[in-house]
Amino acid sequence: MASVTGPEIERLIQLLAKLPGLGPRSARRAALHLIKKREQLLAPLGEAMRVAAERIVVCGTCGNVDTADPCAVCADPRREETILVVVEDVSDLWALERAQVIKARYHVLGGTLSALDGVGPKDLNLDRLVARVAGGGVKEVILALNATVDGQTTAHYVTDLLTPHGVSVTRLAHGVPVGGELEYLDEGTLAAALRQRTAL
Amino acid sequence: MASVTGPEIERLIQLLAKLPGLGPRSARRAALHLIKKREQLLAPLGEAMRVAAERIVVCGTCGNVDTADPCAVCADPRREETILVVVEDVSDLWALERAQVIKARYHVLGGTLSALDGVGPKDLNLDRLVARVAGGGVKEVILALNATVDGQTTAHYVTDLLTPHGVSVTRLAHGVPVGGELEYLDEGTLAAALRQRTAL
Repeated sequence: MASVTGPEIERLIQLLAKLPGLGPRSARRAALHLIKKREQLLAPLGEAMRVAAERIVVCGTCGNVDTADPCAVCADPRREETILVVVEDVSDLWALERAQVIKARYHVLGGTLSALDGVGPKDLNLDRLVARVAGGGVKEVILALNATVDGQTTAHYVTDLLTPHGVSVTRLAHGVPVGGELEYLDEGTLAAALRQRTAL
Repeated sequence: MASVTGPEIERLIQLLAKLPGLGPRSARRAALHLIKKREQLLAPLGEAMRVAAERIVVCGTCGNVDTADPCAVCADPRREETILVVVEDVSDLWALERAQVIKARYHVLGGTLSALDGVGPKDLNLDRLVARVAGGGVKEVILALNATVDGQTTAHYVTDLLTPHGVSVTRLAHGVPVGGELEYLDEGTLAAALRQRTAL
């Protein structure tokens, strides 16, 4: 390929292929699309990446990514200060913010405990979480962790860590997803939905 | 979203979502992946895009994209000068080069004739093709166009355009794809494969 496309295009394809969701074939297609739309897309995207690489920092308080530390969420004075939503990853924080269901503060763990992958408590953003709770002002910690084995293991660990500090620790409800059909749900979800049924 | 991620990340997501194969959701995932791998991926990819936007030109001879004009293919002295392979798009040129089946020169049309999409002969890189053939030295023009209605219409048009110049115009064979199963092939392909059967 090098003789056809030149090292610059080859490097662009190789780097694009490292993005999640793009393989070698779709990376070539994306590179060609970028080259064809040089002014509208290639140059602006390159510039946006340069700016992002230069300015983005991890928030020292919650672990979110932003161009300021503390991040826009932590610095927002209109948010509920007494509620802390604990998430695994920044993408979960974004998902909750898109849903616009809670105006609280967040804490990003940066993963879940996993014996299989060798992730222990020291690898997660836990010390900072305990310090935030111990610092006072937080009344409720909502564990918005994935309903996976690792997520639930982490939830139990975090609960044990935080209860001595006198905060109420809650987790997201299990149940039938909105728009979901019972026929396609697993037994665990159906059992949880029945157990946690609510009055009409 | 703007209040959570800041305008820089938002812009990165919006531009990534314009790549073929990435939607809004996968663009967010890609942006987060890039931010997490800032040193290994975000900064180098931004730089590769800047370099590409700055240096890539369309070859004035064949229509390929490269950092030099004439491009590396046109400038390569080891290629067969008498054969010209006509393709619709640069991606087809790349595909043929990856297959390493012919060391010839190319000519990129930049599309196919299409009454439906309003693409006429003036919209394609045809004048330059006729000039190359009329300039002498070319003995055979291979039409490596897609086996679609538009591709075949274009093939007929190009044939009519070039035959007055005394070159032999050929096209790719139709038939059973290597590894393909007869059971799943359409009637047109089977008929073509039978008609153009070869001796063992």
